[in-house]
Amino acid sequence: STAQTETLDRVSMLLQLCVDRYYVSPGQTNVELFQRGLCCNYGPLGMELRRNLLDQWWHSVTKSRAQVFGINTLSGSRETAALGQGQLRIVEYEHLKQSVEQKELNKEQLIQEVHMLLQRSPSTRTNLLQGALEQFVPSLELVNRKLPFGLAETGLCFQPSEGSGCSAEVTQTSLVWFCSPRTSSQWLDHWTRQRLKWWRKFALSPSSFSSSEVQQEELEEAASRGVRIIYDFPWGQEIVETLWSRGDAELLSIHKGARSKLQCRDGRKSVPHVVSITANMDRGVMAFLSNSLQQLKREDSKQKLHQRKVLKLHPVLAPIKVALNISRGATVELRQVCEGLLQEFLEAKISVWPGYLETLPTSMEQLNAKYDEMGVLFTIVIGENTLESGLLQVRNRDTTIKETMHISEIKNFLFRYISATDNI
Amino acid sequence: STAQTETLDRVSMLLQLCVDRYYVSPGQTNVELFQRGLCCNYGPLGMELRRNLLDQWWHSVTKSRAQVFGINTLSGSRETAALGQGQLRIVEYEHLKQSVEQKELNKEQLIQEVHMLLQRSPSTRTNLLQGALEQFVPSLELVNRKLPFGLAETGLCFQPSEGSGCSAEVTQTSLVWFCSPRTSSQWLDHWTRQRLKWWRKFALSPSSFSSSEVQQEELEEAASRGVRIIYDFPWGQEIVETLWSRGDAELLSIHKGARSKLQCRDGRKSVPHVVSITANMDRGVMAFLSNSLQQLKREDSKQKLHQRKVLKLHPVLAPIKVALNISRGATVELRQVCEGLLQEFLEAKISVWPGYLETLPTSMEQLNAKYDEMGVLFTIVIGENTLESGLLQVRNRDTTIKETMHISEIKNFLFRYISATDNI
Repeated sequence: STAQTETLDRVSMLLQLCVDRYYVSPGQTNVELFQRGLCCNYGPLGMELRRNLLDQWWHSVTKSRAQVFGINTLSGSRETAALGQGQLRIVEYEHLKQSVEQKELNKEQLIQEVHMLLQRSPSTRTNLLQGALEQFVPSLELVNRKLPFGLAETGLCFQPSEGSGCSAEVTQTSLVWFCSPRTSSQWLDHWTRQRLKWWRKFALSPSSFSSSEVQQEELEEAASRGVRIIYDFPWGQEIVETLWSRGDAELLSIHKGARSKLQCRDGRKSVPHVVSITANMDRGVMAFLSNSLQQLKREDSKQKLHQRKVLKLHPVLAPIKVALNISRGATVELRQVCEGLLQEFLEAKISVWPGYLETLPTSMEQLNAKYDEMGVLFTIVIGENTLESGLLQVRNRDTTIKETMHISEIKNFLFRYISATDNI
Repeated sequence: STAQTETLDRVSMLLQLCVDRYYVSPGQTNVELFQRGLCCNYGPLGMELRRNLLDQWWHSVTKSRAQVFGINTLSGSRETAALGQGQLRIVEYEHLKQSVEQKELNKEQLIQEVHMLLQRSPSTRTNLLQGALEQFVPSLELVNRKLPFGLAETGLCFQPSEGSGCSAEVTQTSLVWFCSPRTSSQWLDHWTRQRLKWWRKFALSPSSFSSSEVQQEELEEAASRGVRIIYDFPWGQEIVETLWSRGDAELLSIHKGARSKLQCRDGRKSVPHVVSITANMDRGVMAFLSNSLQQLKREDSKQKLHQRKVLKLHPVLAPIKVALNISRGATVELRQVCEGLLQEFLEAKISVWPGYLETLPTSMEQLNAKYDEMGVLFTIVIGENTLESGLLQVRNRDTTIKETMHISEIKNFLFRYISATDNI
């Protein structure tokens, strides 16, 4: 049908744009990983976008309350492996090869040998929950055994292939929230509201993010309730974040049922319940790119119809805040002005694109089209005029309006603009 | 000998302090990983310290020049694996188990089966160089084939066990610098100076960091020159960063000798030479903790001799900038003042320790001792007086001087103090 074709066109256009504009590295396999919401080889802009997203998550979660602490756990675990759990194992190639090539072994011994080697190889984590549950006891001292509190972590997790033979990597964020048993359902609601608000804050069309309660029959083993945060991609809905109210069973099992070690103060003494909040930030990158792409039709000066594509990424997420260009006749003086401004921006941690280094001749129109597709917030043009009067031209991605501004004002202008959008 | 005993004491005291003060999670194995400069389970403070260190690295490398771009590559590679390279493989436990348990296979077929499975399993990266070399071609468009430029990445790498059966994780930083063949040695010197300056910037005793040229016989296969940056631990020297001038052999080999695809403009056309700059940031964390620990003897009011331990971490690295405490009689009003300040600090991204939540009675002297060991820069004490006059007490970790300050000034004071030390 036409609707389907349009969707396909839109998706392939988005993917092509992401490759052309340095978000995702080229290559069929790589782009497929990206579309599936998995970690891929990112280009500089994709890398910076994910970095900004992770920073925002970190700030929002750890800075929202006094009782959230960041941790870092290992991605490989020997304990899990020894228990026969953990589907992915890191084995040493030469070691395994030599083991199975031992001449004197018969078939049964050989199988035995492979088993032992697998048992001793660390298993890679598939999520960050396990690590946080293990860190629960050492964390109790931090909070004087007082509930509620949370452990936050971001990191790489590995997904088993489930038959396809193709395991994958995912960048996850995890908040594991420990609270008193009677409040766990309220906390699940609290965090659902918080997280949904967070996703929507950065979206051009916030309604593309929604939450839905997990049906009873789909609940994970340990969980009594679950909520999914979903993004509406052109090809259908995908889960970006999952929240579970998990009870205390896993905590007890990991700490071998040592209730007294786990008890916290909260009016009465109790083993806390666990609320886990896990997001896939690679899919998050994909969602915000998909969400922010706008196609606008416009007429040029010769009344020819053009299609303008703009990545209207939220100002705090946009990987490049400003591009620096020279209008014409790249003299030594103009380049020096650009380099001075570049340094000023870099020191203020405003990410800048050195367009003035571009040596191929391009019209300003082509440049603006390119920057719009990159999602660059502002484009500065420096010309002969700048040397005389200190004035330069600043173009806004979203309004396409060009303003004249004095060179001494520009840094503060950008700084204020970005901070203002951060605090909404 | 006495000197050896003293060293041992100092090391075990440092490690104990790191565990007690939330830098490293408890446990013999974990502390050993930490001491060996490997990734371990970090507590909230260790996690934040490494985060600050990685941020500083990122800022210093990507913001130092216009031509450095951040990338993100996968930690597992199928291509490397298919070539029979890569010592660590991620295999699926069930898959391998089922394969070797197939009844109808004889011994040779079984060995064949294991081989095939290993060939198809992705290999995990041991460094970030390979990924950057692969991303060289897609990056050429970014820079218009103009040299020099660099690709920066930080991430987890896996180290083979070399016989011990115990592979390990390391957080590496990598800058891969592409330059014209005739300048590669100069660039190696340039980056050595830059990197050494960076390490020393944050050190209490900068001379503990030094650089040394790698001897001819120790050079890696591809390299024509190498430099190591070394930290002088109490137990001996360890490498924190390595710089290699690697020529073009690896770049050519990865891109199958396609010279024309690799050629860059730089006066004449040439395949660039590669300078790789790789640091171990887990060992970096260990180095700065070791470097910043000071033991000071002081007399108390009753002329009893005390030993004061202070983690004099550089202000930008210190995981906690300020601790918030109530002097006595924790009334509701005083807590509200604390909560207000906490929010103010969090919004300004000043990391704060909510000492006022502590419910165990502790003397101010004990608290200060604890904060010194945590490396907390400033301690604020809020008392009855604050409610009347708005005045509070601020103690400086390094000078131990207590100043009285108005509550409205404190945020800007901290902000200025930290920024000032950042720009030295």
